[in-house]
Amino acid sequence: MRMYDLISKKKLGEALTKEEIEFMVTGFTDGSIPDYQMSAMMMAIYFQGMNPEETVALTMAMAKSGDMLDLSAIDGIKVDKHSTGGVGDKTSLALTPMVAACGIPVAKMSGRGLGHTGGTIDKLESFPGFSTGIETEQFISQVNEIGIAIMGQTADLAPADKKLYALRDVTATVDNMSLIASSIMSKKLAAGADAIVLDVKTGSGAFMKEEADAKALAKIMTDIGNGVGRCTKAVISDMDQPLGFAVGNALEVIEAIETLNGNGPEDFSLLCMELGAQMLLSANKAQTVEKAKAMLLEVIDNGKALDKLAEFVKAQGGDESYVYHPEKFTLAMFKRPINAPVSGYVSHIECDEIGVCSLMLGGGRETKDSEIDLSVGFVLQKKVGDYVEAGQPLAIMYGNDIAKMDMAEERFVKAYTFSDIKPAECLMIKAVIS
Amino acid sequence: MRMYDLISKKKLGEALTKEEIEFMVTGFTDGSIPDYQMSAMMMAIYFQGMNPEETVALTMAMAKSGDMLDLSAIDGIKVDKHSTGGVGDKTSLALTPMVAACGIPVAKMSGRGLGHTGGTIDKLESFPGFSTGIETEQFISQVNEIGIAIMGQTADLAPADKKLYALRDVTATVDNMSLIASSIMSKKLAAGADAIVLDVKTGSGAFMKEEADAKALAKIMTDIGNGVGRCTKAVISDMDQPLGFAVGNALEVIEAIETLNGNGPEDFSLLCMELGAQMLLSANKAQTVEKAKAMLLEVIDNGKALDKLAEFVKAQGGDESYVYHPEKFTLAMFKRPINAPVSGYVSHIECDEIGVCSLMLGGGRETKDSEIDLSVGFVLQKKVGDYVEAGQPLAIMYGNDIAKMDMAEERFVKAYTFSDIKPAECLMIKAVIS
Repeated sequence: MRMYDLISKKKLGEALTKEEIEFMVTGFTDGSIPDYQMSAMMMAIYFQGMNPEETVALTMAMAKSGDMLDLSAIDGIKVDKHSTGGVGDKTSLALTPMVAACGIPVAKMSGRGLGHTGGTIDKLESFPGFSTGIETEQFISQVNEIGIAIMGQTADLAPADKKLYALRDVTATVDNMSLIASSIMSKKLAAGADAIVLDVKTGSGAFMKEEADAKALAKIMTDIGNGVGRCTKAVISDMDQPLGFAVGNALEVIEAIETLNGNGPEDFSLLCMELGAQMLLSANKAQTVEKAKAMLLEVIDNGKALDKLAEFVKAQGGDESYVYHPEKFTLAMFKRPINAPVSGYVSHIECDEIGVCSLMLGGGRETKDSEIDLSVGFVLQKKVGDYVEAGQPLAIMYGNDIAKMDMAEERFVKAYTFSDIKPAECLMIKAVIS
Repeated sequence: MRMYDLISKKKLGEALTKEEIEFMVTGFTDGSIPDYQMSAMMMAIYFQGMNPEETVALTMAMAKSGDMLDLSAIDGIKVDKHSTGGVGDKTSLALTPMVAACGIPVAKMSGRGLGHTGGTIDKLESFPGFSTGIETEQFISQVNEIGIAIMGQTADLAPADKKLYALRDVTATVDNMSLIASSIMSKKLAAGADAIVLDVKTGSGAFMKEEADAKALAKIMTDIGNGVGRCTKAVISDMDQPLGFAVGNALEVIEAIETLNGNGPEDFSLLCMELGAQMLLSANKAQTVEKAKAMLLEVIDNGKALDKLAEFVKAQGGDESYVYHPEKFTLAMFKRPINAPVSGYVSHIECDEIGVCSLMLGGGRETKDSEIDLSVGFVLQKKVGDYVEAGQPLAIMYGNDIAKMDMAEERFVKAYTFSDIKPAECLMIKAVIS
């Protein structure tokens, strides 16, 4: 088999066989197939696409290119959750204690974020002492004991995907549905869960700007997962404005705790309920969405979800008192309102721009070696549909550097659009695909 | 400017500017743009194409990537000729003395061949003592004195094309008209001629199997040349069977000499007359094709073309007595007829296969370091349209290795197709494009 022939075949629009895709992924991973052939192949795939069988084959070949986690030592049906990412997305922080409190074992391997704010691990490190540097043995026994553990990514999960994504990123071949889907799903399948619930976001702050594209991507990913025997569902959710009010690491942890107290933002609470319900259904903990949502409401009302978060933080070395006293979190030195320049209804928020403003304050990583400032960010006061008087605050900004705050403020205001007419309401949950 | 953005642009079907193409070619040549980005770009160009302006810009950027020969010290209009290649293509050997005898200065820089038989230089080395290792000064003074000189490629002509072609060759991105045209024309433009006549071949032994493709390629190349002020014409000629009868280095030299004696094969003589006529027109040596052909016939009839070849061979150190006594050329040790397996009309010759048989005998280079055996090859006895009785010879094979000859014979016979019905006659000259 020669890579040249495979490129030719794909160029002419023919489907590659499972064996050909495995040859390609193996050769690319071990270096026997050079980058320049793989990038030509990626561009050919961009134009000719891949059929469902090819997409599954690519996903499985990449999943098997490194370690495949074995979670069989953990009792019960393990359900993993994945988000395609956005601004203010603190979903895992609230959702994992909720479903763990309902009896779903949460065994999550997480990476650090590269983007507007940190990843789940970065955010959890807002709790003094908290660590994800635990060994696999402790990880598994902790899940069996208290039902929840999160460890840093120590295993070599889907190295083929890592190498391929880096190449696609510099050759303008990221934006193909099959390639995006196989990239996400290869890592999820290698991470060992029995079932997967995907949060596929759409809107100005999402990778998929159009709802139709988000649905198409969700369909490909659920088909991949279900095709290889892992029950996979996807929730299409809104990311046309930041999720909830808080954007920034410690600020988002505080908002997640408020949500576990039953006082979270309406949109964020809705999303947690929907994702949680789908996870409970996948784990056979409930038979209907209504019953699942009732179970989730119950663990919030009776405080068990909040207690689960405290138990989890404590088990991994963190100070669990912060869970009950979120006022203890360290926030940035300076706090400043960002005021509306005109009166009117907020008609649109350029969501990506809010993320960039958070990054400007130091809340995210520009390169993988950047240090994150966990204490900075924004708490929005006005979102789409809200009326604001000129001079009234759109958001409260938290920062440690006046110059950076000045720049961020200027950009933040420009991300808002105002109108005399109240805009149509935007649905948080667009669809559930399985 | 970033290569990433240029790939994105081309991927979306937009045209690149002259500046963008120059940036790309310069960066690729100096190594600042990596192979993997260039191969992705080539695949994007395969799918989205390039418009005429982009094609000219790519050609000129590659032509300027190395030395640009200055032939202004040579008097008169310099006309270069280029063939897209085929089997039995000894055209330059006969054509250059013909046009030189008519007063066109021939200043040709030639490479060694990589293919079924050697290149023009290899073939000329059949003359004992002949050398193309001359310096530029001698090259130019020889053209001014006797009207013809051929030197080995010492200058660094279009290195960007060389590097790009090597990459396209391993990434399945050779077969795009604009890329093929710019590759050929960049070298021709760098080689310094005032006018160019292209011999674009079509048929089973040509790169362009279909006549329509050959015409399209010819149109792109003539547009490039004429667009940058070099008078460029193209003759579309048949390569559906070997050109003439001889295939193999010394055998082809002998056939070229026979042609200069007026005894050449009909198809080959026709081609030399047509290409020569176009060269004379381009050089303003004749006003009509008819007059040009009459001039060419005259230098054959009066022996001046043959004498010019002898003068040229002698000037470059070769034994010119071979020109008048071609029986002196060393031919292979063994000579064997290849006989027809059945009686009938030859309806088709799979031309590429005849080339492969020549290569099997040792007449061509498999890699650039291979040694060529100049003495081996075939002289066809039957071509398309000829009737043959079973057991009568299709060709005479010349070889130095019985085992290789046995293999070549088996393959040679299979390249012929026979029929009870005489096939329609095939035109040698399909069209002239300017």
